Amino acid sequence: MPVSLEQLNSASSDDFVAALATVFEHSPWVAAAVAPGRPFVSLASLYSAMSAAVRSASSAKRLELINCHPDLAGKAARASVLTIESKYEQGSAGLDRLSDTEYDLFQRLNGAYRQKFGIPFIICVRRHTKDSILRQFELRLKHTAEAEHETAINEILRISGLRLDQHVVAPDRLPVSGQLTTHVLNNHDGCPAEGMALTLFELGGDGTRRVITEAVTNHEGRTETPLISARPLPIGRYELRFEVGRYYADHGTPTADPPFLQSVPIEFSVAEPERHYHVPLLVTPWSFATYRGS
Amino acid sequence: MPVSLEQLNSASSDDFVAALATVFEHSPWVAAAVAPGRPFVSLASLYSAMSAAVRSASSAKRLELINCHPDLAGKAARASVLTIESKYEQGSAGLDRLSDTEYDLFQRLNGAYRQKFGIPFIICVRRHTKDSILRQFELRLKHTAEAEHETAINEILRISGLRLDQHVVAPDRLPVSGQLTTHVLNNHDGCPAEGMALTLFELGGDGTRRVITEAVTNHEGRTETPLISARPLPIGRYELRFEVGRYYADHGTPTADPPFLQSVPIEFSVAEPERHYHVPLLVTPWSFATYRGS
Amino acid sequence: MPVSLEQLNSASSDDFVAALATVFEHSPWVAAAVAPGRPFVSLASLYSAMSAAVRSASSAKRLELINCHPDLAGKAARASVLTIESKYEQGSAGLDRLSDTEYDLFQRLNGAYRQKFGIPFIICVRRHTKDSILRQFELRLKHTAEAEHETAINEILRISGLRLDQHVVAPDRLPVSGQLTTHVLNNHDGCPAEGMALTLFELGGDGTRRVITEAVTNHEGRTETPLISARPLPIGRYELRFEVGRYYADHGTPTADPPFLQSVPIEFSVAEPERHYHVPLLVTPWSFATYRGS
Amino acid sequence: MPVSLEQLNSASSDDFVAALATVFEHSPWVAAAVAPGRPFVSLASLYSAMSAAVRSASSAKRLELINCHPDLAGKAARASVLTIESKYEQGSAGLDRLSDTEYDLFQRLNGAYRQKFGIPFIICVRRHTKDSILRQFELRLKHTAEAEHETAINEILRISGLRLDQHVVAPDRLPVSGQLTTHVLNNHDGCPAEGMALTLFELGGDGTRRVITEAVTNHEGRTETPLISARPLPIGRYELRFEVGRYYADHGTPTADPPFLQSVPIEFSVAEPERHYHVPLLVTPWSFATYRGS
Repeated sequence: MPVSLEQLNSASSDDFVAALATVFEHSPWVAAAVAPGRPFVSLASLYSAMSAAVRSASSAKRLELINCHPDLAGKAARASVLTIESKYEQGSAGLDRLSDTEYDLFQRLNGAYRQKFGIPFIICVRRHTKDSILRQFELRLKHTAEAEHETAINEILRISGLRLDQHVVAPDRLPVSGQLTTHVLNNHDGCPAEGMALTLFELGGDGTRRVITEAVTNHEGRTETPLISARPLPIGRYELRFEVGRYYADHGTPTADPPFLQSVPIEFSVAEPERHYHVPLLVTPWSFATYRGS
Repeated sequence: MPVSLEQLNSASSDDFVAALATVFEHSPWVAAAVAPGRPFVSLASLYSAMSAAVRSASSAKRLELINCHPDLAGKAARASVLTIESKYEQGSAGLDRLSDTEYDLFQRLNGAYRQKFGIPFIICVRRHTKDSILRQFELRLKHTAEAEHETAINEILRISGLRLDQHVVAPDRLPVSGQLTTHVLNNHDGCPAEGMALTLFELGGDGTRRVITEAVTNHEGRTETPLISARPLPIGRYELRFEVGRYYADHGTPTADPPFLQSVPIEFSVAEPERHYHVPLLVTPWSFATYRGS
Repeated sequence: MPVSLEQLNSASSDDFVAALATVFEHSPWVAAAVAPGRPFVSLASLYSAMSAAVRSASSAKRLELINCHPDLAGKAARASVLTIESKYEQGSAGLDRLSDTEYDLFQRLNGAYRQKFGIPFIICVRRHTKDSILRQFELRLKHTAEAEHETAINEILRISGLRLDQHVVAPDRLPVSGQLTTHVLNNHDGCPAEGMALTLFELGGDGTRRVITEAVTNHEGRTETPLISARPLPIGRYELRFEVGRYYADHGTPTADPPFLQSVPIEFSVAEPERHYHVPLLVTPWSFATYRGS
Repeated sequence: MPVSLEQLNSASSDDFVAALATVFEHSPWVAAAVAPGRPFVSLASLYSAMSAAVRSASSAKRLELINCHPDLAGKAARASVLTIESKYEQGSAGLDRLSDTEYDLFQRLNGAYRQKFGIPFIICVRRHTKDSILRQFELRLKHTAEAEHETAINEILRISGLRLDQHVVAPDRLPVSGQLTTHVLNNHDGCPAEGMALTLFELGGDGTRRVITEAVTNHEGRTETPLISARPLPIGRYELRFEVGRYYADHGTPTADPPFLQSVPIEFSVAEPERHYHVPLLVTPWSFATYRGS
């Protein structure tokens, strides 16, 4: 249940800590540390204070914070003993619907990571697809323990930023969300393409495709709502597929039989989860172009 | 074994007919009909004479010619009693490697067609993919018997044109072949993209993909040889996939991690088998465009 | 001095007529005709009532209304006896700064038109450039008197719509304005082009160029305000010129010497004054593209 | 009158020197130096030998060679006492039709250069436009005398290479020529744009425009011959203007009135005279794109 920044500022210290208990996994001490600093004028200043409290804590305290986190896609997930927040986050990348082979792979990686660094592998799951998590696992297994302790804290702060942004109603928002939008221009007729069906897929490294969303363009050639918004864009590969052939057939535009362009896929990757990716389509029955816009 | 136009012109009438025996399926009478018209100054005039002989034959004769053709992907194919030419042609569209389900489908369609029109379904297989053959089956089953007799003769003449063009060495060629080419321009650096790997796939209606050819662009950004040439382009759907990410990584061009564009697919369809399709890629690490060129 | 719709609705009949006196040239009777219809819930309904009053007036009355209008760029303009509204409107298309040759041309055309049709040539000047006015003169001189009487009324209603929209403050606006915008995307680096200088010119048929506005793109690659807005886009030819070479030089992007692209002109025409024209530039040091967007 | 490499190889030493007398301005000693090295298997090896003879000559000899060259656009040009070769070359960049102001400017620059370096300003004129010659003048005036003596020899060798390539008939050609081509693709209809008129202009820094060539595209959307070929492309600024509006009007393609695109200019610069510049146009009535191709 969301709470307002105003309520947080005027609450008793205990209520304040209780209200923010879930922001740092099993670690109410972070909220307690910043409670005396109230009132906070913005969500950004509250988040900044909490981040400072974590960074300035003793290394033992920071290690304890790290160890409060569950394994990724681990036994806890299968046994359903995760915090609600962890459960929701791991589900966002599909870690709650792994095949047995994938589950075993994650267990091996968790084990190898814990054995090398003595801590659980922590990553802000909502910024990733399953594929990019696996890639991070492989990259980070090559690092030093010191670097990984630092990375673990950074990822915890990202996780907390997202939880805070979602949990607290405030005039400002934390810069934790990205946006994916598109726009279809019909260059054959010099107008926005209205009524073109499109589908966004997430592409897995193993050739799998998962529908993220389907939409039809409006009179401006845009979708009514962004394809992804109000959350980080998961790092990974995507396909945006436009039903160009059907659109021109519906408009009676002369083409070939079968039309040169029918279903037009655009494959692209997201690398910056907090940015705006605009992936437009400029199209005629015989040509198309796209680019990373913003 | 190819024969030259010169040899055909100077051969005895019997040898001439024998040399062209395979051009019209089991129907040496067509060659016999044009033998007195020799010498032919070009392959085009020979083909024109043979076409005229067929078109001016009695309707009984034409029906006999039609009935000399085997069923598509039929029992004859499985039993290997096709003429070598038919066997080769049906193989070109993959009709010799049908699954049992597909085989049954073709049998049903063959049966329905034969029952409605009293003749085998004839189509110039080398101008089609398996998918477009099935589509033609469905379309043509809706026609009248009169229209289908006419279509059967037209398709026979297409088949013969291809056989003649392949079998006879002459100064001219029949206009029976198309061409598929590509060209990659690196608009980031203002030069042809040399060394970009690409793959051409044929796409099946059922989601299958079959590699047609693989190539790497040369210093002009082109492939050393056309992607398809010296034959009709089979009507159907294709994907041309360019390894853009690897190319820019090899050139040390700064991009994102993962790069916005990695493997770039272009999906398009061929509708005119005897034409030149040029499908270029204009590309930067952040944008691309394509069009039907020629 | 603007007046609010509210004030108009609550004013005495005389004050209402006085406040709208200038909407129809020397013709307060139009306002008088609609005064009893108050209150008007929107500017659109007021305009609609005034239009209906004109269209349903006797043909003598309509002719009188037509004859209340001055000649275009005529003696009245030179002698400064135009209404303030006419003066402002004729100035918008440069009719107040004609060369002697142009002045003579307009006099000849005015004379020819008046002689053929018995009425002054009326055109909603703010929807046109000087060139398109001359083109309309030539076209309309070929019409019938009946068609031109009809056209004169239509143009008067356009003029009045613009005057009303500018003069009355209301919650709604009349659909009398267009917009010209641009957007520069740097496809070399996958980001908006910030800090690119650009100039919009109006092009005359005689090879003249007149600067309409200059701007520099902001961090979104857009101009802070539309290139043209809050008025109809004058029908005519334009050049939008982008200083691409300087932009890439400022960014240290390697190019040739001299750079392949330095100052990039886009020439286009406006045909629909009340629409949104978006003319973007997708650019690298070696390529560019544009299209009519919206 | 051209001479063949064969003739040069079999001529007497005196005839050989006489035949190549004009290759190095007033300096038959270069030809004499390489005569004993015959036979030359290629034009490239002959040119290479002559270049080596110049580079290995004493510095006094090289200075003498430099001083054999006339001033650019100087009194000699006005008095018509240039060698035929110099006259032709200076004419190619318009140096024979300077206004008095330009003539004075060249005289001042010639004087300043000669005063600073003690030698005439030498530049391979056929690789430049008048504007780029002036720019080189300004740049080179800032150099050291040593650098300019070196540059003078390099430019002399470029001049000689061009003269040799033009004068001697051989199986090989020297790499002294560039090429400018275009190609118009009609993306509205998926075909080459046949019958589109286009004009190539050279743009002067002072706003002048000079027509270089006019052409109409053929059935492949190309011009019958390259826009420039068989010579270096002069370094400078160009405009290629395509009559898009007329083309689509001729084809009955629906557009606006006036059409959004009428006469489409592409402005670009040449920096590498010996390269192939391909400047295509991909166009619909509502969009266009271009790029540096090759």
